[in-house]
Amino acid sequence: MFLGLDVLSGQLSSWRDKALFTPGPLTTSRTVKQAMLRDLGSRDSEFINIVKDIRERLVALGDGVEEYTSILMQGSGTFGIEAAISSVLPPQGKLLVLVNGAYGKRLLKIAKIHNIPVSDLTYAENTKPSAADLEQALESDPAITHVAVIHCETTTGIINPIEEYSVVVKKHNCVYIVDAMSSFGAYPIDLKTCGIDFLISSSNKNIEGVPGFSFVLARKEALNAAKGFARTLSLDLFAQWEGLESDGQFRFTPPIHSILAFRQALIELEQEGGVTARGARYKKNYEMTLSAMQKMGFKAYLQPKDQGYIITSFYYPDHPNFNFPQFYERLSGKGHVIYPGKLTHADCFRIGHIGRIGLADVKALLSAIAKTLADMNVHISEKIEEQ
Amino acid sequence: MFLGLDVLSGQLSSWRDKALFTPGPLTTSRTVKQAMLRDLGSRDSEFINIVKDIRERLVALGDGVEEYTSILMQGSGTFGIEAAISSVLPPQGKLLVLVNGAYGKRLLKIAKIHNIPVSDLTYAENTKPSAADLEQALESDPAITHVAVIHCETTTGIINPIEEYSVVVKKHNCVYIVDAMSSFGAYPIDLKTCGIDFLISSSNKNIEGVPGFSFVLARKEALNAAKGFARTLSLDLFAQWEGLESDGQFRFTPPIHSILAFRQALIELEQEGGVTARGARYKKNYEMTLSAMQKMGFKAYLQPKDQGYIITSFYYPDHPNFNFPQFYERLSGKGHVIYPGKLTHADCFRIGHIGRIGLADVKALLSAIAKTLADMNVHISEKIEEQ
Repeated sequence: MFLGLDVLSGQLSSWRDKALFTPGPLTTSRTVKQAMLRDLGSRDSEFINIVKDIRERLVALGDGVEEYTSILMQGSGTFGIEAAISSVLPPQGKLLVLVNGAYGKRLLKIAKIHNIPVSDLTYAENTKPSAADLEQALESDPAITHVAVIHCETTTGIINPIEEYSVVVKKHNCVYIVDAMSSFGAYPIDLKTCGIDFLISSSNKNIEGVPGFSFVLARKEALNAAKGFARTLSLDLFAQWEGLESDGQFRFTPPIHSILAFRQALIELEQEGGVTARGARYKKNYEMTLSAMQKMGFKAYLQPKDQGYIITSFYYPDHPNFNFPQFYERLSGKGHVIYPGKLTHADCFRIGHIGRIGLADVKALLSAIAKTLADMNVHISEKIEEQ
Repeated sequence: MFLGLDVLSGQLSSWRDKALFTPGPLTTSRTVKQAMLRDLGSRDSEFINIVKDIRERLVALGDGVEEYTSILMQGSGTFGIEAAISSVLPPQGKLLVLVNGAYGKRLLKIAKIHNIPVSDLTYAENTKPSAADLEQALESDPAITHVAVIHCETTTGIINPIEEYSVVVKKHNCVYIVDAMSSFGAYPIDLKTCGIDFLISSSNKNIEGVPGFSFVLARKEALNAAKGFARTLSLDLFAQWEGLESDGQFRFTPPIHSILAFRQALIELEQEGGVTARGARYKKNYEMTLSAMQKMGFKAYLQPKDQGYIITSFYYPDHPNFNFPQFYERLSGKGHVIYPGKLTHADCFRIGHIGRIGLADVKALLSAIAKTLADMNVHISEKIEEQ
């Protein structure tokens, strides 16, 4: 463990784990973790009230009051995605998925394993799916009833224009499913303006809670229309909603402690100034990272116009002494955890900009990277200058 | 919150939540909760080593070394049950479920939602399924390939004889699935002797961790035979195992903090003296509860020979002033959380004997019950004496 300053309170933590520059699970505040030092009964009124408060705060975060509801689902983000896909597609439905990375492919995989008819528009990982192609696809295949897209494709960090797609989706009266796993809480999303029917994210992303559950923001009308379509018991989104609405309880044991942490995280999000302020902090982390990495000679995988401030993919430097596992381990040994790449056709690693980290953490990471390059005898900045 | 003494260390906690006399989530030790005050990357070696250690300890708890493996699955216990049923039944398989309570019925429900052919032998909630009936059912329906049973049916607290059934199951070469949600860790279970192929339990039961995941102990040969049968992505037991075996990582974000707590809980289980010592503590809790409750005039739902020491169902007292919601709230207000009943044909409530609670906690509960009866003007002991 390492000494560290908390990014918002500025207070010195007497101990601290390695800083996580990953897409999640993330570094969280000490107070978020301390909220877990309790044992509450899952059917006791104190817990039921906490769940109610969380559900209301989530709907408010998406500006969805009145028309929308929220459902917490045990398990990771993927469990929430699978809950949505497998619960809302009717037996006669067909899904179209816009794919430009691993998480889009995962949506396809989920549809296929449930024998849901599905087609896809697949693009290179550095390219945003085109709204015109979507228009054409919906024109030419009237069987399509649902469209799903990833907002921030964590594979690269690209931000797909969900509002642009929504116009096309709504024109064709399709149900619109948005995987906002890595964006919700850091990018303002107005559920109504974006015409979103189902949005999925998870506890351990930009809300800065700990892992344990995902959540779905659902347009009530669309959710009601999905009654009886579920293909599993555990991941039945409608039944989960019905349970939470009827007596405030989960159908099956909830991750009490993760939920307690999440409530504290939502309070701290509000204290920071909401989604805008949080997005601004992450953006500063991103800008400092990008600029310093470029100065050191690293190249970002995406063009700046496509790149979000959640996570950035960098090419491996073209130097014989560079070895990613060694680079990773040396940084980890110094207290900074970065993330491997997930690209099909390019050797990259990733640096996340989200979680309870600020410029001091980013600076420390960047110095450690510079030092590690020197230790490994990797000289890339000179190489760039020579070009 | 309340003042309390820790049952094992004897130390006074400066604060403590209400004691949970429930089937879980349970009261856990302070040190188990404190193990969650960390942020670890899910792909970092420290976390990977912790997961490996947990998986080995679980197999050892079931005396399954060599032949068995263990798989952690995100979500509640039900997620683990659904993972097992939906991942191991082959397309041509048929399941037989022994049912004497709500959790047996849940197994049936899971099979049905996945369109798995299933039949059942259903008994009254106070009656153990009969091995002779099982024998006859397997004789008369050779299509049955898998048999599933609940060890401790938490609906009542009855303990079903899983070893007796195993002889019949094995004679007919069926795969044997045991839901040991509420028994594993408190009743010694020898996986080999009981001929168990898949055993399911969860993090927040007798191991005394916090909720967040379930686990499956699987005979490797049976698990290997189930490759490709999964009907979901998230709950694919084989793929989850393959992921954990290949690089020690989860396929999807694990509940890091619940896992850290569970590791500490496993260490504390060992320190207490293992399953036998823990079972002995729970049994004392049970015996004190039963004897004092009977003295107060309450009647247990089950006969003593069928009753386990996990949880006990008591009939509502036959007195006009008794009202369960009021009784529950008054006890909760005094710091003791009991549990509602779940029986089809009888009005009962339940008192759990598991979790980090000991005789001092039980005594405090029993005094509170006596006082609450007096406060509510419910006179049942006199009534009994008059009979």
